[in-house]
Amino acid sequence: MSSVIENVLKKCVELNAPIPEFQLYLNDLPGNDFNTLFKGLSSFADRYNDASLFMMGAPGSFYGRLFPTNSLQLAHSSYGVHWLSKVPKLTDEAGLPLINKGKIFISKTSPVAVKEAYLRQFEEDFSLFLKSRSQEMVPNGRLVLVFNGRPSADFTRDYCYPIPWESLSEAIAAMVSEGLIQEEKLDSFNVPVYAPSQKELKGIVSKEGSFELEQLETFPINFGDKNLSDKLFKNMRSVTESMISHQFGEEILDKLYDKFTQISIEDMATNEEYKVLSFLVVLRRKATDH
Amino acid sequence: MSSVIENVLKKCVELNAPIPEFQLYLNDLPGNDFNTLFKGLSSFADRYNDASLFMMGAPGSFYGRLFPTNSLQLAHSSYGVHWLSKVPKLTDEAGLPLINKGKIFISKTSPVAVKEAYLRQFEEDFSLFLKSRSQEMVPNGRLVLVFNGRPSADFTRDYCYPIPWESLSEAIAAMVSEGLIQEEKLDSFNVPVYAPSQKELKGIVSKEGSFELEQLETFPINFGDKNLSDKLFKNMRSVTESMISHQFGEEILDKLYDKFTQISIEDMATNEEYKVLSFLVVLRRKATDH
Repeated sequence: MSSVIENVLKKCVELNAPIPEFQLYLNDLPGNDFNTLFKGLSSFADRYNDASLFMMGAPGSFYGRLFPTNSLQLAHSSYGVHWLSKVPKLTDEAGLPLINKGKIFISKTSPVAVKEAYLRQFEEDFSLFLKSRSQEMVPNGRLVLVFNGRPSADFTRDYCYPIPWESLSEAIAAMVSEGLIQEEKLDSFNVPVYAPSQKELKGIVSKEGSFELEQLETFPINFGDKNLSDKLFKNMRSVTESMISHQFGEEILDKLYDKFTQISIEDMATNEEYKVLSFLVVLRRKATDH
Repeated sequence: MSSVIENVLKKCVELNAPIPEFQLYLNDLPGNDFNTLFKGLSSFADRYNDASLFMMGAPGSFYGRLFPTNSLQLAHSSYGVHWLSKVPKLTDEAGLPLINKGKIFISKTSPVAVKEAYLRQFEEDFSLFLKSRSQEMVPNGRLVLVFNGRPSADFTRDYCYPIPWESLSEAIAAMVSEGLIQEEKLDSFNVPVYAPSQKELKGIVSKEGSFELEQLETFPINFGDKNLSDKLFKNMRSVTESMISHQFGEEILDKLYDKFTQISIEDMATNEEYKVLSFLVVLRRKATDH
C-alpha cells in the first residue's frame, strides 16, 4: 500500500495533477484476524495526511469473485497464490487412493501421479484466480503477484521445490521413527501448496486468456544468512502450525518444530544453495470488454 | 442488508431489469469484533444465490469520511448516531468544571449548562456525520437512520430522555450509598449519548444543508413486555459494560447490573409508560454538485 500511495503521490507532483482518492481493499480468508489488522490502519493512514485513504477489509477466498465488476485498477497478492484451494485428491490411474509415502508434499520419491494431481489442482485454482480478477479489473489494470516458484520444469533436480517442505517432511518422518507420530498419519497428510515452473505459469496465463504477461522475474531468497534462517523457521511454524496440529495433535508441535529447525540447519550447512525461489509476475488486463 | 437486497431483486423482476451487483460495506469502530462478523457473511450470502454480493468491512468512525466521494447509493445506521464522538466537556459559564451531581446523563436535576453542553456536542457530531455522508453519497441517495430521540423539546417532562440511563444512574447512586463506589467517581462520569428532539434534529439537518428530510417517524418501544424488558437489561449491559468497568472497576459489574435490573423492574411497575422512543429518519441527498 505504501508503494502504491507514494508512487501515485510522486506522479501527481510530477504531472501537477490533483491527488486522487485511494480505496484500498485488504483481502484474506474470513478465518483470519482482521481485528488486529484494523486496529493498525489509522496509524498507517496518519502517515499520508495529504491523501484520502479509504481502507476496507474484504474477507473471502480469492479463488472466486471478491469485488464488483470493472472496479480494480491494481491488484497485488504477496505469497498467496502458491496456496491451493484444497489438497489435491490423490488417486492413481485406476482411481485408487495414492499414497505419497513418508512425504507431505511433492518430493523426489513421490509417484508421478502425485505431481500430476498437484499440477492439475494448481491449474484449476490459478485459472479461477485469473478469471475472477479479470472480471474485477479495469482494462489495462495490473495484477502484481509474488509467490514461490520452481527454477526448472521437472521435479527431479535438487532444489526444484521449496526446500522447507522437504525439511518439515523429514522432521515428521523422524518423529514417526521415534513412535511419536503414527505412520498412517504422515502418509495421509499432504500440504495444499504448489510452486509452479515458469513454463507452467505461462501456459496457464495464456490458456486463461484475460491477461498479458508483462514481466516475469525470479529471485532466490538465500536462507544461508542467519537472520533470514531464523525468520524462515518462525515463518514456517506460523504458516503451518494450524494444519500440522489439526493432523498430528497439539502436543507434538514444540518437538516437531525443534526438529524442523535442527534438520534445516543441517541442510543449510551441507547445501550452500539452500534457497527458496520466488516469482515476481506482472500481468496486464487485456483491454477487451467484460 | 436483507431488506435492501430483497427489495432490489423484487423491483428487478417487476421491471424485467437485470439484477445489479451489490457492494455492501459494514462499518463499525476499529475496536469492534469484525472477525465474528466476517465468519457469518458467507452463510448470509448463501441465501441470495441469484445475486452477486460483495461484502466489505469498513472500520472507522462515522464522524469523518469512510468511503470515496460519490460512491454510496444508500446508507443506513441503526442505533448509532445517538452515540456522541466523546463526552461533552462540562464547564459552567465561567469555564469552571461543572458537576452533574449524582447523575451519568442529562437528568431532571442536571444544571442547564449540562444540557446545553450535550446538545452542542450532538450538533457538532451530527453535522459532521451529515457532511461526511453527503460527500460520499450520490445525488438523491438516501440516508436511513434509526436512533433514540426525545418526545418533547424540553428536558423537564417525565420520560423525555431514554429511561434506562436514569435507572442506571440510580443503580450507581445506590452503590455509592452503600460505600461500594466513590461519590467522586459517579460525579465525574457521564455517558456520551444524546437523544435529540424532533425540532433539534430538523434544525441541524436544515443548517448543514446537504440533505432534504423526506420522512421522520417516531416509534416507542414499550419495555413493559417481559421479553422486551429482559432484552433491554442484557442490551444495556452489553452496550455499557466496557465504559462502566473502565470508570468503576470490573469487580462491581455483577452487583451493579443486578441493581439496575431491579430498579428498572420497579420503575416499570410504577410507570405503565416505561418506554424508549426511537426516531426513523429518511434523508435525501440533495442533487447538487459535490
